[in-house]
Formats: sequence, C-alpha cells, structure tokens
Amino acid sequence: MKIGILGAGQLGRMLALAGYPLGHSFRFLDPQRDSPASPLGETVVAEFDDATALDRFADGIDVCSFEFENVPAASLRRIARHVAVYPPPDALEIAQDRLLEKQCFRALKIATPDFYPVDSLPELQSAIQRTGFPAVLKTRRFGYDGKGQWVLRTPDDIEAVWAEIAVSTQLILEGFVPFDRELSVIGARNVSGDIAIYPLTENRHEGGILRLSQSPAQSVSESIQRDAEAVMIALLERLDYVGVLALELFQRGDDLLANEMAPRVHNSGHWTIEGAEVSQFENHIRAISGLPVTGAEARGYCAMWNILGQPPPLPDLLRLPSTHVHLYDKPPRPGRKIGHVTVVTHCEQMLRSTVEQLQTIAPQT
Amino acid sequence: MKIGILGAGQLGRMLALAGYPLGHSFRFLDPQRDSPASPLGETVVAEFDDATALDRFADGIDVCSFEFENVPAASLRRIARHVAVYPPPDALEIAQDRLLEKQCFRALKIATPDFYPVDSLPELQSAIQRTGFPAVLKTRRFGYDGKGQWVLRTPDDIEAVWAEIAVSTQLILEGFVPFDRELSVIGARNVSGDIAIYPLTENRHEGGILRLSQSPAQSVSESIQRDAEAVMIALLERLDYVGVLALELFQRGDDLLANEMAPRVHNSGHWTIEGAEVSQFENHIRAISGLPVTGAEARGYCAMWNILGQPPPLPDLLRLPSTHVHLYDKPPRPGRKIGHVTVVTHCEQMLRSTVEQLQTIAPQT
Repeated sequence: MKIGILGAGQLGRMLALAGYPLGHSFRFLDPQRDSPASPLGETVVAEFDDATALDRFADGIDVCSFEFENVPAASLRRIARHVAVYPPPDALEIAQDRLLEKQCFRALKIATPDFYPVDSLPELQSAIQRTGFPAVLKTRRFGYDGKGQWVLRTPDDIEAVWAEIAVSTQLILEGFVPFDRELSVIGARNVSGDIAIYPLTENRHEGGILRLSQSPAQSVSESIQRDAEAVMIALLERLDYVGVLALELFQRGDDLLANEMAPRVHNSGHWTIEGAEVSQFENHIRAISGLPVTGAEARGYCAMWNILGQPPPLPDLLRLPSTHVHLYDKPPRPGRKIGHVTVVTHCEQMLRSTVEQLQTIAPQT
Repeated sequence: MKIGILGAGQLGRMLALAGYPLGHSFRFLDPQRDSPASPLGETVVAEFDDATALDRFADGIDVCSFEFENVPAASLRRIARHVAVYPPPDALEIAQDRLLEKQCFRALKIATPDFYPVDSLPELQSAIQRTGFPAVLKTRRFGYDGKGQWVLRTPDDIEAVWAEIAVSTQLILEGFVPFDRELSVIGARNVSGDIAIYPLTENRHEGGILRLSQSPAQSVSESIQRDAEAVMIALLERLDYVGVLALELFQRGDDLLANEMAPRVHNSGHWTIEGAEVSQFENHIRAISGLPVTGAEARGYCAMWNILGQPPPLPDLLRLPSTHVHLYDKPPRPGRKIGHVTVVTHCEQMLRSTVEQLQTIAPQT
C-alpha cells in the first residue's frame, strides 16, 4: 500500500519507519524541502492548501493520513474525493478548534475545565465573572507548545492581555484547573472499529513544552485507567475515528478532566516505540491500512525524555541500560525538539536512576 | 553520518530502518533499480565493480559497509581509499573463500569438519580417501542457499559429479558431519573493540534455505554457549573485525564445529529486531559508526519464520499474540525470501503454539 502523509516532520518520519516493515511505502507533502521524513519516501514540496500539489500528491496513493493537526480540513476533503483519508476530516476539524473540541467532550459527558467562547472584550469580561481568576484565554485554533495562550490572574490583566493579542474573535476562556498532574491517554481504532488503548502516561511540561513522559503513570488506580479508557472509547466511536488519537488530561484527586485532543500520533506516546509490543506509530499505520490494532500494554516501566536544542553525546547515552535514541535529523536550535530518548526497565527504581543519568547527559537547552 | 551500503536488498533495508533513529542517512549501490532498500535512501544503480560508480558512491559518505558478501574485495579496497570500510575487506576476502575461511578457523583452533582443497580430479580422489563417504564438494566461492554444493555418497559419484560441475579448480571437499542440529552465533564488535554476542540460535534449513530460527536455542548448556562466545571473540579479534559477524555451526553432542561465517547481518539473526534489546541491524550500525554495542540478550523465547514465495494474509498473522511482520517489498516468486515473521513470548509452550499457527497462516511456497 502506498500511504500519503500530509506533513513530513518527525512524526511522519516515525510513521514511515514503522510502516515499511508492513510492506507499505510512503509519500509526503510538506512546505519544507529537507524535512525529517523526506529521506524515507517521495516528498511533494508545497503548501498544504496548494490544490494542484494536493491532486498530484493524491494521485497514486492508496490511503491518506496526516501528522500535523493544522492541515486545512478543506485540503483533506479535496484528497478524500480520490482516496480514503484517516483520521476523518470531521474529527480533525473538531480537534483544530478548542471550542468545538470542548463542546464535543461535553456532549459525551467527559469532564472538562469550565469554558466560554470569547469573541469580544465584553464577552471576555462576562466569561471571567463565571470562571473567576486565574483563567486562561486561548485562541481557538493554531495553538501549540503553549503558544496562543494568556493567563489572566487579576482584573488588570483583562485589558492588558486584550491589547496584546492580535485577534479579537475565535477565542475561548477556560477556568484554571488546580490539577495534581498532567496525564495523557492514547488509543487506536482501525477501519473495522477494533480499538487498542495504551496505559495512562504522566507528562511533565516546562514552558509549555513536553519534557518527560512516564508510562504507565505512577500510582494510577484501576478505576482511573478504566475512566480514561471509557473516555477514549467514547471519543473514538463518536468521531468514527480511524487511526491514533491522543487525549491530554488533568488529574485532580480521583477525577480526570479532558484538556485537549490531538488527532494524530503524539509526543507523549513516543515511549511506545520500545515500551509497548506495538508502537503508536505501527498501530496508526495498522489502523489506517485495515490491519488489527494490538499490543498496547507497556512492556515494563517506561520513560521518554525529549532531546531539546542540541544533540547529546550518543555514546554516553547508549551505554545507559535499556536506553534507545531517536533523532529526527533536524538542525539544532534552542528549545527545539530534535529527538527523544526512551528507557524501558523492569523496575521502577532503575527507571528513575536511568532517567536521572540521562538528564545529566542530555540536558534540555 | 551518511552511511554507504553496497547492496540494497532486504538486509540493507533493515539496516537503514535501524539506522535512521540514530540520526544517520543512507546511500546504496546495487545493480537493481527497484531494490528493497532503495525507498530508504539514495541509490546508485551500478554493478559492484563499476569503478566510476564506486567513486561516485564513495564521494560524500562517512563510512561504508555492505550487505552482500559477494561484493568484490577490490571494490571495497577502492572505496577504502576515501573512507573507512567496515567490516574490513580482508575479513570479507576470507569469508568469501571456503578454503581461507576454514584455514582461519583452524588457525584459531576452532573445530571444523575435515576439509581439503581440490583443484583437479586426482586431488578429489585423494581427498575422498581421507574424508570417506559421504562427503561434500563445494565451490570455494559464490555459493549461497545450498547452491554450488554436491554430495558424494559412493565412489561412482566422484566422476559423475566431476563431469557435472562446470569448474575444475577452486573447490573444497568437506567431510560429512552427522550433526545433531544447526546453530548460529552472531556477534558485533565496534571501532573501539567492544563486543556484544547474541545467544545461540537454532536453525532449520530445508532445501538449503533457512526456514525457522529459534533463540535462545533449546537445551543449550552454559558451556556450549560459552564455547560459541569464545569462538566468536577469537574470530572478531583475529579479523580486527568491525560490524556484525555471523557464524554457522554444527552441534554434535557437546561439540560445536564451525561450518561457515557471513561477514554481515544474517537471516538467523532477524529474531533480534523484536527479540533483543538492540537488534543485529542496530548493533551493526552502532559498531561501524563509533557507538557502543549492547543489548544482545534475548527478551524471551524468540522465533523467526521466513516468508517464502507469497505474502501471507497479514490480518491473520498480526492477530497472533506477540507476532511481528517484516516484509521486504520484493515481488513474489516460489521459494524466494520476501519477508519474515518474528515471535517473542515469555513461555516456551506459547512460542511453539504460536509458531505452529503461523506456519498454517503463512505456508512456505
């Protein structure tokens, strides 16, 4: 099967690496010429809304997917005239818009922080009456890694933030959640409707960027894991979803609140490459190519540490027990995700000690 | 690092799939245009002795290796003027010639079947006096998958075989070994001289073609595993070897006899992709690119089943527990290796039952 992927970044690269063993080949479309995935398939270099390029891209592929959630849904619909597109464009459209997304959660009775649409200063003022301070004002679309978000802590912040932001519509105000920790759950659903769900993963962000994931998350009760699975199943079925879906959650006591979903393979699932029988990348490819999705259990105590900024000294890293390195072939730049390290051990103590060592060897810059 | 690989078959394909995560990129040279590895890097399409093409291939790579042991050593030496070539051309030259190979084993006091060089009919007649019947006459060079071998069972066979074979020099007569089973051991040595050795693997051949490998081989005593490791270390050090080396062995009681070596990743090591912490492919790439070689222990009870002839029904295969499929993107042809299946379990009984099931789903044709 020839699989077309919109976007040729590191997620596309890892999808291709997982898909070749299944006999698939790959074609990418990306505005950048030298992208992480481009050595692993044909690449059409074009903007995501270039109709001629989209048609050329679609011509001869058997199925289309995407690794970047800001692809225009209209582009997916154009491709869908020729060939199946998974995940479905409707699901992408919901995930692209924080308001539609939260409304979808609410319709499925999935708990979320309080939220209100904001399209004007008066609407912001009225919404904040209801959430109280602090609250988080977010653009409905195109936010990532903490961009497009402003925290309002005092009444003075309202007008200051309003003056700072360039847009004045298509915003959402969310009540601030004093959560215990951030978790995520990743599921895959295939064309036949079969579902596989990975264990809850605990994520540590700094400056809006994911630094460390650990899976299974420590001290997760069976009932919380079951809750997360029920939420994931409800979403996958409601969206008639095909592929991998990631859902970011806040945990507060025994409750989970849905923060946002990503309709694609997700950074917090990179531990699955070595940590699960079947990685999120392979399960995404299996899901969209009509194969069974399986093997989502963790093989042990797993962690994923993002490599930010500079490549670390590989020999030192690879000498650590049970440690694997995944580089994306991206030019170094401060704060940029250029790779990740996975660790899988049979004992939690060893996981902790190995993660401590790799933090010294590969500091995030 | 840009790694050049002579040959773009399935071994090159799996080397590239293991090497990209380490941040490497790949260039191949192969006489065939559409080869299994060619979607995974640049491919120079040329004969292995095309001097101009070899120079073009070598220009801009950081290190060169090969996945095909019939590459002319002279071609490697030409490339070695520009860039490091691993495994060393001298090791390839010895492995390419059954006589030099067996002499090397003997010099290291590694037991082998009896052998005698044969360059004429009288030499054959005199050699067979010493081995007795049955004996195996082999070409010294270019044999693979049972080709270039003739079994002599009675005195009448001598002249019959001699008439049949097209060559009359560069042969070797080997005494027939009534072995209990066929094993192999695979080791990796890196630029710094560090060594990692995988557990002994049991191999079942039919018609000269490998069908099934199981690792760790059943009922291997510690002393046999130690013997195999000692032999592997002696060879790696004697050849000043860098990369993965495979050694095929006959087991007879408590003794191991060396049959032949392959200076490359080996079909009997394909189980390591899921079955070991670090696969033979990754360890080969690590070895030649100055990284540590590690993680050669088996993760459980592992098997590898070659897919011969036709692609099997993937959904049925992937529904089996702990089963992974690796296809090479080669056109189907009876008896041709077009992929393999790996199984890794925590219990020997389950390994047997899964292998039985996959033999039904993916019969070898």
